[in-house]
Amino acid sequence: MSPKKFSSRYTSLYRKLSAQEQVAILLYMSKWLIICTLVGALVGTASELFLVSLAWATNWREAHPWIIALLPAGGFLVGALYYYFGKEVEAGNNLLIEQIHQPTHIVPFKMAPLVLIGTVATHFFGGSAGREGTAVQMGGSIADQFTRLFRLSDEDRKTLLIAGISAGFASVFGTPLAGAIFGLEVFFLGRIRYHAIFPSFVAAIMAETIANAWGLEHTHYLIGEIPSMNVWHIGYAVGAGLCFGIAAFVFARSTHFFASIFKRYISYPPLRPVVGGILVALAVWTAGTTKYVGLGIPTIVDSFHTSLPPYDFALKIVFTAVTLGAGFKGGEVTPLFFIGATLGNALSAIIPLPVGLLAGMGFVAVFAGAANTPIATTIMAMELFGMEVGMFAGIACVVSYLISGHSGIYHSQVIGSSKH
Amino acid sequence: MSPKKFSSRYTSLYRKLSAQEQVAILLYMSKWLIICTLVGALVGTASELFLVSLAWATNWREAHPWIIALLPAGGFLVGALYYYFGKEVEAGNNLLIEQIHQPTHIVPFKMAPLVLIGTVATHFFGGSAGREGTAVQMGGSIADQFTRLFRLSDEDRKTLLIAGISAGFASVFGTPLAGAIFGLEVFFLGRIRYHAIFPSFVAAIMAETIANAWGLEHTHYLIGEIPSMNVWHIGYAVGAGLCFGIAAFVFARSTHFFASIFKRYISYPPLRPVVGGILVALAVWTAGTTKYVGLGIPTIVDSFHTSLPPYDFALKIVFTAVTLGAGFKGGEVTPLFFIGATLGNALSAIIPLPVGLLAGMGFVAVFAGAANTPIATTIMAMELFGMEVGMFAGIACVVSYLISGHSGIYHSQVIGSSKH
Repeated sequence: MSPKKFSSRYTSLYRKLSAQEQVAILLYMSKWLIICTLVGALVGTASELFLVSLAWATNWREAHPWIIALLPAGGFLVGALYYYFGKEVEAGNNLLIEQIHQPTHIVPFKMAPLVLIGTVATHFFGGSAGREGTAVQMGGSIADQFTRLFRLSDEDRKTLLIAGISAGFASVFGTPLAGAIFGLEVFFLGRIRYHAIFPSFVAAIMAETIANAWGLEHTHYLIGEIPSMNVWHIGYAVGAGLCFGIAAFVFARSTHFFASIFKRYISYPPLRPVVGGILVALAVWTAGTTKYVGLGIPTIVDSFHTSLPPYDFALKIVFTAVTLGAGFKGGEVTPLFFIGATLGNALSAIIPLPVGLLAGMGFVAVFAGAANTPIATTIMAMELFGMEVGMFAGIACVVSYLISGHSGIYHSQVIGSSKH
Repeated sequence: MSPKKFSSRYTSLYRKLSAQEQVAILLYMSKWLIICTLVGALVGTASELFLVSLAWATNWREAHPWIIALLPAGGFLVGALYYYFGKEVEAGNNLLIEQIHQPTHIVPFKMAPLVLIGTVATHFFGGSAGREGTAVQMGGSIADQFTRLFRLSDEDRKTLLIAGISAGFASVFGTPLAGAIFGLEVFFLGRIRYHAIFPSFVAAIMAETIANAWGLEHTHYLIGEIPSMNVWHIGYAVGAGLCFGIAAFVFARSTHFFASIFKRYISYPPLRPVVGGILVALAVWTAGTTKYVGLGIPTIVDSFHTSLPPYDFALKIVFTAVTLGAGFKGGEVTPLFFIGATLGNALSAIIPLPVGLLAGMGFVAVFAGAANTPIATTIMAMELFGMEVGMFAGIACVVSYLISGHSGIYHSQVIGSSKH
């Protein structure tokens, strides 16, 4: 296209768009302000309910670790639940991403209670899993119920799903801005489209506000002293980012690998988490520790200031890949925080940056590489650890995003542009 | 497209991309790490030089306000400089954006010294202008000189220009992450493409690091107490964002309006800033104050804690639109900070949020609406004012971005997707 043609094409587009009146924008804003305030309030409440149940399940398990011996039975429960009642929502996060790209049918509301029960059971019996999958799926399926109520078009439905995902993510981690950007960033690899930016921001901030009003408290991470940036530190951050990206790559591949192994050799789906449960329970018994099951928050907190075994991150990759590959529920993100924070902790032996900073960089950067969301994770680092971590975390997240390749934990993510 | 076809199309794209080896990514990273470290170091140094000259010019003018009477002569200097030596770089920021969309020829290096001299002269004689145009143009033109040196392809040249813009913005405002995102966000309205994300981050962080190493100090803004978020506060932030967006719209239209008036009635370009200079000098004399010329940093700082006249923002719009429309140099952003901060200050009379918070929200949000960069400006608020401002600033920036319409201060910006 010649520059002239190019410019005239966009000039006419510009004219057309500026001819639309400001009134249309005001109507659009009012509509989404109402819808997303409701969505945010409901999703924030659901997240509070979920996190309270999850805390109860985790505390009960920690007090009665023998329950892990029953993990295979818990696995059957989760597997049968989805096999007999939830086949059409089994795809979870990927189903939501697919519906954003190709809206075909409303996501059934039952996705929300199923994933909530499945996740709480997974953690109660000692699987190694996360919680953002639950939050995102509750957010998406709750939001999608408004499609009928407000008679929304397909285009509006996409926006609504993105806002629901943002709300779920924001309220489960207490990071409203990272949540808002996560919803916009996750469905396209390498691109953000802004058509849902206002609904996302409103839903995410509302969800976090309501969850806070219910009394939800998020874990605080103390990162300690942050050195000022210099040329060497940029190099160290790049080097750390490389390691985090490789961990993200290995994690995504391992999860897919175990999932395909379970699928190939066990044809009756409810049996897969039973076998997975046996493997994880045996591994806990062999290792003699419960530190690699559940969310692993205590170890994540420790990784910011205590020297940990350098293989922690590798064991957590295996525990989580088996748990999720077998069909347990919850998601990948908190295990990714664990993997990143403990890997950062281990890297402090060779990279001359403070251990708390490296743990914080790993916390967000392995997730950035696995989910392909470098901007949301950079903002998350600022929201969780403070402004000063931003530059270090930003470099680590972007490098991890680059090096982790064009696959990731969400196979329905569409490649919007090549990474390099 | 059927879902099956859709999915198979992307599956094959995915296979193709994952077949590329991690080695290619490593080579890509090494190349851009070297180039952008150099670009960042040079641009950071140029920004330091520029800001030191600007501080000198501003201080001299404040000590000798009679110099403003010579603004018409300064106008002739700037106008003649560009008319006789800089016609091909006169388009400034828009030239850079055009070259990112349609690379045709290397941006001449002389863009850097010309815009530096033009901006310092504008501020020395008392025009009302900014400084980001200068930083961005120095960044882009310095970066583009590496195109020949490293024999870069057109695609790489786009990346290099984006990195240069990021570096300039980051170092002139001391906001490295906002700078990195600004470069990625500014050339497409409503879309971020990630192909330049690593180069942008490295160049921006390096530029800010080097500028700091040279001893550059940025203004600190004390925003005071931030209330916790609640449902009413979301509504207030939306309301404030509406006002900021309207101000952004009026500013962009005014600047274009005065530029077209000057062009229509004065055919000899060097005469335009002479007439503009007469108008501004007369207005200063009539108003009896110099607060609306130059960058206006003291008034911006005051707006965070002192009650100011409610018409400050309107006068700054007129002063800046005349100055820039006539052909003076520097850019729009610091005046937009002034307009937003003083408008936020005025809004504190009717919106029950603290004055410092409203000033901070306006500071970034009017700019978000005028430049169509809501994510960069939200991050900027976090970098300048602290994490707690993020949610308030985020809503204000997104609303302002929506309401300001599909035009803005950069007419070469291509519409990537409609705002709503």
